[in-house]
Amino acid sequence: MQIITLTTDFGEVDPYVGVVKGVILNIFPYAKIIDVTHNIAPQDIWQASWIIENSYHYFPHGTIHLCVVDPGVGSERKPILFETRNYFFIGPDNGIFTSILEKEEVINIIELTEKKYWLPNISQTFHGRDIFAPVAAHLAKGTTTKDFGKLLQKEELVKLQSNDFTKTEKGCVGIVKHIDHFGNIITNISSSSLPNKISGRFKNLDFKGFISNYSEAEPNKLFAIKGSHSYLELFINKGNVAKATNAKTGDKVEVRF
Amino acid sequence: MQIITLTTDFGEVDPYVGVVKGVILNIFPYAKIIDVTHNIAPQDIWQASWIIENSYHYFPHGTIHLCVVDPGVGSERKPILFETRNYFFIGPDNGIFTSILEKEEVINIIELTEKKYWLPNISQTFHGRDIFAPVAAHLAKGTTTKDFGKLLQKEELVKLQSNDFTKTEKGCVGIVKHIDHFGNIITNISSSSLPNKISGRFKNLDFKGFISNYSEAEPNKLFAIKGSHSYLELFINKGNVAKATNAKTGDKVEVRF
Amino acid sequence: MQIITLTTDFGEVDPYVGVVKGVILNIFPYAKIIDVTHNIAPQDIWQASWIIENSYHYFPHGTIHLCVVDPGVGSERKPILFETRNYFFIGPDNGIFTSILEKEEVINIIELTEKKYWLPNISQTFHGRDIFAPVAAHLAKGTTTKDFGKLLQKEELVKLQSNDFTKTEKGCVGIVKHIDHFGNIITNISSSSLPNKISGRFKNLDFKGFISNYSEAEPNKLFAIKGSHSYLELFINKGNVAKATNAKTGDKVEVRF
Repeated sequence: MQIITLTTDFGEVDPYVGVVKGVILNIFPYAKIIDVTHNIAPQDIWQASWIIENSYHYFPHGTIHLCVVDPGVGSERKPILFETRNYFFIGPDNGIFTSILEKEEVINIIELTEKKYWLPNISQTFHGRDIFAPVAAHLAKGTTTKDFGKLLQKEELVKLQSNDFTKTEKGCVGIVKHIDHFGNIITNISSSSLPNKISGRFKNLDFKGFISNYSEAEPNKLFAIKGSHSYLELFINKGNVAKATNAKTGDKVEVRF
Repeated sequence: MQIITLTTDFGEVDPYVGVVKGVILNIFPYAKIIDVTHNIAPQDIWQASWIIENSYHYFPHGTIHLCVVDPGVGSERKPILFETRNYFFIGPDNGIFTSILEKEEVINIIELTEKKYWLPNISQTFHGRDIFAPVAAHLAKGTTTKDFGKLLQKEELVKLQSNDFTKTEKGCVGIVKHIDHFGNIITNISSSSLPNKISGRFKNLDFKGFISNYSEAEPNKLFAIKGSHSYLELFINKGNVAKATNAKTGDKVEVRF
Repeated sequence: MQIITLTTDFGEVDPYVGVVKGVILNIFPYAKIIDVTHNIAPQDIWQASWIIENSYHYFPHGTIHLCVVDPGVGSERKPILFETRNYFFIGPDNGIFTSILEKEEVINIIELTEKKYWLPNISQTFHGRDIFAPVAAHLAKGTTTKDFGKLLQKEELVKLQSNDFTKTEKGCVGIVKHIDHFGNIITNISSSSLPNKISGRFKNLDFKGFISNYSEAEPNKLFAIKGSHSYLELFINKGNVAKATNAKTGDKVEVRF
């Protein structure tokens, strides 16, 4: 029962997702392919990084996470595979795995160079199909990580700059990391480090927190809640913060204790 | 071969769907997870109710239907599981199962209180991940429904007000229940109760029916057809009723015999 | 391990996709159902044809490809099943399989007439559910193609007009066949037939090619690349051609050698 998850920016209109699944199943028909999302904003490696970081650890140990958000496809950027204590990750070396590499105990990292595990013809524009999918399938089928290429050191990999929140005299300042489907704002401020009573400002709106659940909040007003990812989240009961404030990833969030 | 279907308003951009699948597979890797939809309008329990009602019975007996449209997450609303003669349903007690409870022979209804079948840490914002997914997985794995909590009576559950159509002297009056991807209007008027020749009015347009198939209708005009869900449907051949009329759920549809 | 792929214009909001999956699994619970896409533009048989043509051959031999883009549902158009040397295809006879029929060695073609393999009640609007899904499931379960109805000849099937590109004195002229999720333009011009250095014009923009990978191109300028489907593609590094040029399927692309 080998699970392969897919996290991509391929969208859901083109044949790209179907093709990747076809390539995997053609090599290893018993793979259990699970879509995480194909709707990462095109080439947004920061969003990809966030989605992977907040989903991979819910899957069974041994799961292979295939992540293809790859603006540098066909260039010098390395295709990689790495094994941690509990999972496997496959994708481009462009920083999308930054936080995984920080959090997980890494066993080994391989630059994918062994062409016998690739499709016979390699395009310059679709390594998801030509390199990453067949490698995931061969890995699922039983090939050892070391067989796929040459060892790399953690230090050689591309890292995204981290976005830690900063403590201030009277509270802290963070940023919007993710805006979800409900228009809720997920920040980079770890909610476990905060007192139970806070206030703050986002865009031109003041907010208070922490509210214990969405429906308890006065409608149409901005509130903070300790979100399901353990970050401070901003929400409007029966509303949509993103629409109400025209929020964007990177916008500043100020918190006062 | 245990099937678990997912019907949610999680959308397809966030990690939420992937996380729910990961939680299920972590407990029971053999589950066959089938997406019904993740695109219910955020917190629209009426749409959720309609989608569930019109899809659940096509699945094999024994299927577990996991439905998470949950505006009251973290509040007093009960998390429930119920078993009917042929299926299992899991989700919040907020009315989304109203028509299932009317149509199906209910064996027993359980309020989910037994925490050993939940994730260890329960958030106030994502019971889909923390309660409903693990309960579905444990049920698929073989746990008996009664083990998950305490028995409830059907009368204790939240019901949505029903929207029956009303008969008039010369016909009937109903409402728009669902607007589909093609812009077709699906009403709450049961088509089996109607004569083969009708006329009617929707918004500022007259229509006639019943047409026997879409492509037979004169293009760009509104017509009625006996739809695949056995309701009166309004359509425009080579057109989109919803766009042409700015239709909304709840709009009135008048039929004359 | 029988794979059934789904390619439809059902969208992802309605119960249609879930219903089709339920019907299949009700007949043959072991089917491995793989979504190619449900986001073909409503009733766009040309787009459907292109998506199928560019995805089917990546799947394992024996895969059943179920394709439902069916503007003529309920009319005289025939429901068909055909077997090629390596695959099975099921769907309406409206031209969506044109290029498959040209490329693949066809073993036999069946008009679906044998009602014992359909659902008991046949609507006039949803043959995906009532005819195509149950036929796919029975085929996956082991029924022989000939049992599903009567033999047809290839010449009896509906064909879409082909859109070959035309050679000119100094190059060639083609059209936009597909616009992908990234806003890239995929033409009908086979890139293998072209020299390595070309220039051309699309809408009011000049372009040069071939660039060897996306990220090598000067940002915000139009370039040509040999795409992953072996067609000439137009792209803008860090941009979106479709948005920048308001491109539509069928738009002319001129190439000079």
